[in-house]
Amino acid sequence: MSLKSEILEQPAVLERLYRQQRSRAGEVARTILERDVTSAFLAARGTSDNAALYAKYLWGSMNRLPVALAAPSLFTIYGTPPRLENCLVVGISQSGQSPDIVAVVAEGRRQGALTLAITNDPSSPLAEQAELVLETCAGSEGAIAATKTYTTQLFAIALLSAALKGEAELFEALERVPRLVEETLALDSAIERAAQRYRYMTQCVVIGRGYNYATANEWALKLKELAYVVAESYSSADFQHGPIAIVTPGFPILALLPKGAVFEDAYGLLSGLVEEHGAELVVASNDATALGLARTPLPLPADLPEWLSPLVGIVPAQLFCYHLTQAKGYDTETPRGLLKVTRTW
Amino acid sequence: MSLKSEILEQPAVLERLYRQQRSRAGEVARTILERDVTSAFLAARGTSDNAALYAKYLWGSMNRLPVALAAPSLFTIYGTPPRLENCLVVGISQSGQSPDIVAVVAEGRRQGALTLAITNDPSSPLAEQAELVLETCAGSEGAIAATKTYTTQLFAIALLSAALKGEAELFEALERVPRLVEETLALDSAIERAAQRYRYMTQCVVIGRGYNYATANEWALKLKELAYVVAESYSSADFQHGPIAIVTPGFPILALLPKGAVFEDAYGLLSGLVEEHGAELVVASNDATALGLARTPLPLPADLPEWLSPLVGIVPAQLFCYHLTQAKGYDTETPRGLLKVTRTW
Repeated sequence: MSLKSEILEQPAVLERLYRQQRSRAGEVARTILERDVTSAFLAARGTSDNAALYAKYLWGSMNRLPVALAAPSLFTIYGTPPRLENCLVVGISQSGQSPDIVAVVAEGRRQGALTLAITNDPSSPLAEQAELVLETCAGSEGAIAATKTYTTQLFAIALLSAALKGEAELFEALERVPRLVEETLALDSAIERAAQRYRYMTQCVVIGRGYNYATANEWALKLKELAYVVAESYSSADFQHGPIAIVTPGFPILALLPKGAVFEDAYGLLSGLVEEHGAELVVASNDATALGLARTPLPLPADLPEWLSPLVGIVPAQLFCYHLTQAKGYDTETPRGLLKVTRTW
Repeated sequence: MSLKSEILEQPAVLERLYRQQRSRAGEVARTILERDVTSAFLAARGTSDNAALYAKYLWGSMNRLPVALAAPSLFTIYGTPPRLENCLVVGISQSGQSPDIVAVVAEGRRQGALTLAITNDPSSPLAEQAELVLETCAGSEGAIAATKTYTTQLFAIALLSAALKGEAELFEALERVPRLVEETLALDSAIERAAQRYRYMTQCVVIGRGYNYATANEWALKLKELAYVVAESYSSADFQHGPIAIVTPGFPILALLPKGAVFEDAYGLLSGLVEEHGAELVVASNDATALGLARTPLPLPADLPEWLSPLVGIVPAQLFCYHLTQAKGYDTETPRGLLKVTRTW
């Protein structure tokens, strides 16, 4: 399957995931609640690491779990892993193959921690090591750049969060996600036209905050992987602690800014970047004022709950990267220097 | 004081810090060991956040503490902070002023967690909120870009790690750090000459792994703050999971690669970047083979223990950024768009 068809396939894939894993997520949640889990410890690389960032914010705020992102080298190289007895140790990986991620989960299990694999391959080494498995049900991934395997990881993370919380309205919101993604895919031809403007963009910054810090990271990663743009991602707070110095008139800033709790803070930064620094913005938002700041506005659906906005907000970003890659004359299917499964240690 | 004099002052400042805080670090360590701490939860921004990354690796490997880096927006904006009862909650901030960092520590204390401030100002709001305080004793900071306040934060983190472990040889190694920093400062004029080559560099990648992932982040931040270079930092493992696609012949890669456990892994990546991708390297290392890969080698002292290498390895990086900023004709003392104390929420 091509990259484009995998982007377009996402509503159907997410719907299948919900159907096939809802009850499994309930079982996983029950096991977590029964055990003495005081925090979560997540290991992932690349796109999956961006999904882990979403879990850090979502499980932190909705389930009040402190979430640590693993430093795999402590397990694989330094050989002195931290004590994980009271943690939920989670490995997130599409393929379930990268030895460093498998090693973190194996060590968690050895120490007696509760372990969970979130993976697209339930027969992978990662799934075999973990006590619990949530499948992402994305189907086989043909493109090198991850799209549907990212949104399904986010969905699995959100589904588990809802299951831990056990409120019916959370599940109702999850059920609406495939439709919201479908609606966003209608931006395709507008984004194709808009992408022409960025043909010679060689560097940019991507901003998101809170739940959408993950989206900023994933957007930036796709820009690097596919369009070879040096794209750096920041939360709107971190960006002010130093990196803002790189912004000159015309500097391209891409931003995710759906309505919600962090809107005001991030909006303040972006309007200052336009007014005081002369930055040029691409903004994905469902707020008219925020879209009004942008040279290239990417409208998101109006009825988008903030906690699920990363699942929908990444879609125009995927389309933007796809069309920019084509505008630059690069190959969307086989980006240089990348393999489908990267094995690190 | 100017930026350059603050860089040069570091050996003296580190020596003073050791003298003034060694016994305090022992008291802090005893309190931590007495309480039921199962993990550490760190809040910081900008340069201090890079120091927090060092703590994540060092406390993880040497003290076997799982370390989570806080998402401050969960405290300040979402209003649903995670449960921190069993954590050591640490705020790291030179000024101790940023309201978001203060808010994380205040919430930790409210929940009954053990709290610690690592700050240069023992009368700051951060220090007032925390039960325990480690001072970084860096003296007043005049330059906008942090140098001595970063190395002293690293030193305080390493001192606490040694105090928790309580082994005499660790303290002996700490005592040698000021001399190693002094030795490294002798590279000044060689780095001044070498920096000319990068006058028109507008983007680059900085690589480090393990303890020196922090150094890569701090080097990249200084490049952005002072020389306005779009500099991205990666661990050698993360870089292979996608971002490596941006490398074309001549692409500048800056790397920290001291001898130690992660050397082999990172060396493998760097030699591949040269041989297969044609990247051009700047390498700070105490290994002749690694220096041999580089167009611009930055030799580090031979007798550098890996766990303390970030304190010494950042010094040639500071000098590199300082001289590059001058070569580009920018102002080293008042970088555009930055304030001494950034207050975010």
